[in-house]
Amino acid sequence: MSTAVKVESDRISVPVRARGPRVVRVALAGCGTVGGELVRMLHHGADETRARHGLRFRLMRVLVAHAGRPRPDELDRALLTTDLDTFLATDADVVVEAIGGIEPALAIARAALRSGRRLVTANKALVAAHGPELAALARRHGGRLDFESAAGGGIPVVRALREPLSLTGIQAVRGILNGTTNYVLSRLEDGWTFADALADAQARGFAEADPSRDLSGEDAADKLRILAWLAFGTEPARLQVRRRGLGDGADRLARAARALGAAARLVAEAARVPEGVVASVEPVLVSAGGDLGRTRDEENLVIVESAWNGRVRLSGPGAGGAPTASALLGDLVRPALRQRVPGRSAAPAAADRRPHAWAVAVERGVPAEEALRATLDRVDVEVDRIARGEGVSVMRTVPTPWARMGLAVRALEVQGLSPAVLRVDPGA
Amino acid sequence: MSTAVKVESDRISVPVRARGPRVVRVALAGCGTVGGELVRMLHHGADETRARHGLRFRLMRVLVAHAGRPRPDELDRALLTTDLDTFLATDADVVVEAIGGIEPALAIARAALRSGRRLVTANKALVAAHGPELAALARRHGGRLDFESAAGGGIPVVRALREPLSLTGIQAVRGILNGTTNYVLSRLEDGWTFADALADAQARGFAEADPSRDLSGEDAADKLRILAWLAFGTEPARLQVRRRGLGDGADRLARAARALGAAARLVAEAARVPEGVVASVEPVLVSAGGDLGRTRDEENLVIVESAWNGRVRLSGPGAGGAPTASALLGDLVRPALRQRVPGRSAAPAAADRRPHAWAVAVERGVPAEEALRATLDRVDVEVDRIARGEGVSVMRTVPTPWARMGLAVRALEVQGLSPAVLRVDPGA
Repeated sequence: MSTAVKVESDRISVPVRARGPRVVRVALAGCGTVGGELVRMLHHGADETRARHGLRFRLMRVLVAHAGRPRPDELDRALLTTDLDTFLATDADVVVEAIGGIEPALAIARAALRSGRRLVTANKALVAAHGPELAALARRHGGRLDFESAAGGGIPVVRALREPLSLTGIQAVRGILNGTTNYVLSRLEDGWTFADALADAQARGFAEADPSRDLSGEDAADKLRILAWLAFGTEPARLQVRRRGLGDGADRLARAARALGAAARLVAEAARVPEGVVASVEPVLVSAGGDLGRTRDEENLVIVESAWNGRVRLSGPGAGGAPTASALLGDLVRPALRQRVPGRSAAPAAADRRPHAWAVAVERGVPAEEALRATLDRVDVEVDRIARGEGVSVMRTVPTPWARMGLAVRALEVQGLSPAVLRVDPGA
Repeated sequence: MSTAVKVESDRISVPVRARGPRVVRVALAGCGTVGGELVRMLHHGADETRARHGLRFRLMRVLVAHAGRPRPDELDRALLTTDLDTFLATDADVVVEAIGGIEPALAIARAALRSGRRLVTANKALVAAHGPELAALARRHGGRLDFESAAGGGIPVVRALREPLSLTGIQAVRGILNGTTNYVLSRLEDGWTFADALADAQARGFAEADPSRDLSGEDAADKLRILAWLAFGTEPARLQVRRRGLGDGADRLARAARALGAAARLVAEAARVPEGVVASVEPVLVSAGGDLGRTRDEENLVIVESAWNGRVRLSGPGAGGAPTASALLGDLVRPALRQRVPGRSAAPAAADRRPHAWAVAVERGVPAEEALRATLDRVDVEVDRIARGEGVSVMRTVPTPWARMGLAVRALEVQGLSPAVLRVDPGA
């Protein structure tokens, strides 16, 4: 049976993987917020992973600290083990480490890489302390190390720094890398007390039960070590990070910022100076309307400044199980792909029949406005309100499909009115 | 001679590639704005590429349409050819296509991939029309297709959609994908005429000599086809894009938006609906203070909305030779790397001796403010100005290194003042 791809024409619908999906065997260490979410994603995303990428992930073993805790319904309980040796002996292609902390994560990472397996980890402390060692183990034994989820949660910043941006002459990497402290600062900005703000962050699942590594800035510093390693090659454990976090006086930071008409953010920054790379995690007074000031709640933001590429910003959900597990899943899928573009048409193209609100403007003047009104009326487009100013009359419609709006526009053009037509964004 | 890596300790400084750099032979088609910039980057970045990645790029041949045009000083003129067959016969590992348009780009792409070579292209029209065919050729012949620079300029959006974000349940991809039209709309917002705005965009090198594909929205539509392909698997050439660009009445768009207290942007959007994937490129009325409204001049923005990962935003320089060439360079380097993390410490860690402005706040009250003043005075920290409000007194200093500020902070803490200390961002 031939599985050759018959293409070389514009029309392609080829059985790229006629032999069925490739199976990737996964051993998962840790089944808490992140690990549990990954189990759910592997289960519910199985069909799409198979259809789009020709891959099937098979969970072989799940290491947990406590056998009795509640687990996702999607997990086969027979896979659970609390025994490290049993886990390490599991026959798997990839080991996913979602435990956090240094031990037993480091032992698991070393064992996985020494046996030539791929290691995917969400563990910022581990990568910040031992990243180069683990990368060297991967090189030596033919394995692979991936850690997209260790910094930036669901923002693909690790990938961006490892690859497209790494050779653009990076001068600085800075941003908001800890969702908990940013959530707390956002609430303080709203007038909450520090204790209430922190309790709310914990209730929403952004902060750990012990949030001390968040508040002290250590969590952000670990992530910064990783980003500086990728951006500048600076060994993460040796980076000198000037670190000040949020303490009891945190509400004073917010008040001080407000007194100066600005905002306070816990900013992590690594920058190239003539002597090397300098780094800090500390409260920074930022413009309330700027990129950092507008980053609120649990959102993270990374700004990469480079000589050849100007300023690139990446922002998104920095905390939470689903974004972190999404990033883990990306790491799982990536190296298993032969060619990282979709092999077939997964979703057909369709015509847009959705109703949108529209703004239609003509030069101001009675004949034009009346013609516009009459034409919209004739094609049953209902006008919500009219604005006049800047020399134009603007009619804003109720939600209407383009098919009908298009008729009105063409009718107006026939009358020589050349209307300006804007779709109205829901936020506008 | 052994080249084994001796590691497994915290301290690593290993001759990872003791045999010298790996050579990657490059054939470059096109030496205009983008191709010329790539030649300069390969030349000036050679030392860093070698030090950080153990790679050396060797330019083997450069195809140009006109032999007599000015070229970068860094280019060896002996490599130039105007003959397509000579170019195609070049012995190279990678072919970089930076010509644009369909022919001869398509012929070059097909020939490169059929011979099992890697193809790196910046050509959005080519990938939008023939992406799946070229990807299939790469799969079939063991080559590889990369096109980071074909959409989003220097923003790593292609990479993000091909990999970390591809399995997060993407619902919509939207944003500003054309720098020329966004530059024109920004100038119209400032009260310029359409003709002046367009001429300025051309003078700054964002718009082509013939800007019709920018203004008509075709350029943005090509990029959208590529992003929708990666996000949803929808075959790019079949995507139905409702497309309206900027015409003579463009200034009316800006005036209509202003009359409604909002902004006009040319927004590209592809979204999943029950029937499939719908797509549009058209003027949209957006909130002036929102993500789209704040994207000005030649900047691009891509927003990816997904079920599991919320909203991720990527923004940066969308036009210009250097950002596009940076993305090409990333594509060139990536597949040549064995393990995509730095192999050695390229930049040493250093202490931050840079002077920064600081804001120091204490609870408002005469003794506290006097103690703060006296302490800052004692360590020679000059106060620029004082703000009072929100129950605090805030002193803003002139630029001062942390070493000196830290002394003041510790002295204040000894006095039981627990000051709130913020570094002042230059923008605040």
